[in-house]
This record gives sequence, structure tokens and C-alpha cells, in this order.
Amino acid sequence: MTILVVGANGQIGKQFCEQAQQAGIAVRAMVRREEQLEWFKARGIEAVIGDLEGDMAHAFEGCDEVVFTAGSGPHTGPDKTLLIDLHGAMRSVDIAKEKGLKRFVMVSAIRAEKPLEAPEKMRPYMAAKLAADRYLENSGLAHVILKPGPLTDEAPTHGFVDSLEASPSGSITRADVAYALVHVARHPALENRSVTLLNGDQPIDALLS
Amino acid sequence: MTILVVGANGQIGKQFCEQAQQAGIAVRAMVRREEQLEWFKARGIEAVIGDLEGDMAHAFEGCDEVVFTAGSGPHTGPDKTLLIDLHGAMRSVDIAKEKGLKRFVMVSAIRAEKPLEAPEKMRPYMAAKLAADRYLENSGLAHVILKPGPLTDEAPTHGFVDSLEASPSGSITRADVAYALVHVARHPALENRSVTLLNGDQPIDALLS
Repeated sequence: MTILVVGANGQIGKQFCEQAQQAGIAVRAMVRREEQLEWFKARGIEAVIGDLEGDMAHAFEGCDEVVFTAGSGPHTGPDKTLLIDLHGAMRSVDIAKEKGLKRFVMVSAIRAEKPLEAPEKMRPYMAAKLAADRYLENSGLAHVILKPGPLTDEAPTHGFVDSLEASPSGSITRADVAYALVHVARHPALENRSVTLLNGDQPIDALLS
Repeated sequence: MTILVVGANGQIGKQFCEQAQQAGIAVRAMVRREEQLEWFKARGIEAVIGDLEGDMAHAFEGCDEVVFTAGSGPHTGPDKTLLIDLHGAMRSVDIAKEKGLKRFVMVSAIRAEKPLEAPEKMRPYMAAKLAADRYLENSGLAHVILKPGPLTDEAPTHGFVDSLEASPSGSITRADVAYALVHVARHPALENRSVTLLNGDQPIDALLS
């Protein structure tokens, strides 16, 4: 089984690729630029060029699953949110379906289902994430949607909860999001689930079983 | 039958309300601000306050159809495109479904199905329109999606075609988009259709039959 990682060059993407590689799970990292390939190749991870705003269908060939962890990030505007987080995700779902991939794992965001309840600055982003999630849910593809809370760069805890009330930090480390993605990768029967992810006191199996 | 017009205060919205009223079709204009009510009331058109980024479910009560012609317009950024054109449309679809409305008529945009082929500046907008259209198509609601080309304020021609090649002007008047919406309103059996609209030499029935 090979997992295509869309947005592999992001912080969660890189950590997922590395953890998956160590766990013996084959991944193919899709990155946008030539110079981003090296990081993956140096670690023995297959990497290909693919453009979320252009040609990327070739990257899906021969893969079994997608992990979508691409995001335009905080340094670009909502125009890129529309093109990457929303339209890039929708195209990825379409291509995964066309090419017969079996499952699509989406990294979404906590409370994306209620954009108008987010702080005003975050609402457009949440609207894009919700639309991408709904498109995936309506696609007929088997899917898992992980909805992490605010991300930190702390050391992983391998402890999780699925509600803000139960989370002492009210946040989650990127390393733990990657760890949860590896758990999903190891459990191909997990499907059509949407789960909030925060750090807390439970093992990942308790949330994703 | 009563049609809720979401985005009634827009240029197409106003013309549709007026034409529908003259054709004996009952419409309810949803507008955002108190001071926008008067224009409609002066013409004997029912009007209610509803906020695409807030409370609007009450506006749908007792209506049979929706015409969605809201857009954040060219004077705001893609943040508002996400909140109005995309998320406002998705919420309108959800509410229409919850309240048991029978049909949803969307004013989309020509070639919205291919955002990456649009001029670069238009791509984010097209991505939002595509996502809204797809959400409607996947909703299970009966729907008609009209996809007008570049809009003008010329006098109506009542002549249409559905391809750029066949359209001498390569554009369509807002009055003709409103006229096409009235045609759709008069034909409740029309459903699950998506049609490009440009000015040309055919009667509206030829495109929407």
C-alpha cells in the first residue's frame, strides 16, 4: 500500500512522512518545487512534483490512499485559501476517485463545521475547510477527517481527547497529528469518520477505534 | 408559490423581483439592511431582513423555492467571497432543505466548473462558485444552476445561447439573466439542470426546455 501525501512539505506533512517511513508504511510525498524533493529523498522517501494549482494527477497513479495536509498557510491571503485549501482539496478528491484510490484522509480543523462561530479573522478559512470536508463526505470515497485544534510545535505526547473541555492544553502538537495520521494509515478499515483531535489523556485508539 | 430571493438587493436580484412581480409570481426579497426594504415595499414586493453571515432561517419559512443571486461583489476581497458566495450559499442550501423548500435556483458563473482556466484574478471567485454549485448538486434538492457570462447593463434582448462561440457579444445583460430566472420560476418542473447563459439568437425555451 502506498499513501500519497498532498502537502508533504508542510510541517505536519513532513512529520507524517517521516513517522510513516519509520513505521514501514510506504508514502509518496507530493511537493510543489524541485528543491523540496531532496529532504524526502535523503530519508529514503519517494517524492514527486505536483502542483495543487496545476498538474498533479500523475502523482496519484499507483497510490492507494491520500493524506491531504496541504494548506496555503498564514502568509498568503484568502485568495490562496480558495485555490489551495478548497479547490486543491476538491481536485484531489476528484482525482483520487477517478484513479480508483481507496481512501482519502483529510486534515481539517476543529469546529470547521461552524465557520460563523469562529473568531472573525478565522471565518473565511473555516468556510473553505468546511466546504472541502463536505465535498469529500459527498464524494462516495471512503474517508477519515481529522480536525486538530490549535497546532503547536511541542514534543509529542501520544495522548488525545476529542473535546476542548477535556483538553488541558486546548491544543495539539503537530507531531501528534502526524502520529494520529500514522494510526489511521495502519487501520485501513477506518472510514467515514470525522474526529476532533486535541492533546489529552487517552490513547489514539480510544478516539479512532 | 413564493420564491425567496437571496441577494435581492443586488442588480440581478432587484430586476428579478420586479419582473417576477409583474408576471404575477410572488417573491420575498431578503435584504441585509433595514434601509434596503423600502425599494421593495414601494413596489408591493414582500421584503424581509436576513443576514447571509448571521440569522436568515426565518426568511425561508413558508417559501417554496429559493433564487440565490447573492454575491459579495467586486468591492470586497476573497474573504467575503468565502463567507457570502460560498458559505452563504451552502447555508442557504442547508436551510432550504431543512425547511422543505422544493427547488433551489442558483445564479453561478460561466465556466465556474474550471476555475484554473479562468484569468488568474478570477480563479478564487470561480473556485467558490464551483464549490457552491457542487454543494447544491450533492444536496438532493431539486435545482437549476444558471451560469451567465460577463454581465452588462444593456437593455434586455430576450435572446440567448449557451456557448461563447454562438454569442455575438460574449456577454449577457443583467435584465436577461432576470428574465431567464422568471422563465425558470414559471416552469417548476425544470430541475437538475445547469445552463450557460449568454445573449444570442434563441428564445429562452430553446435553452431551458
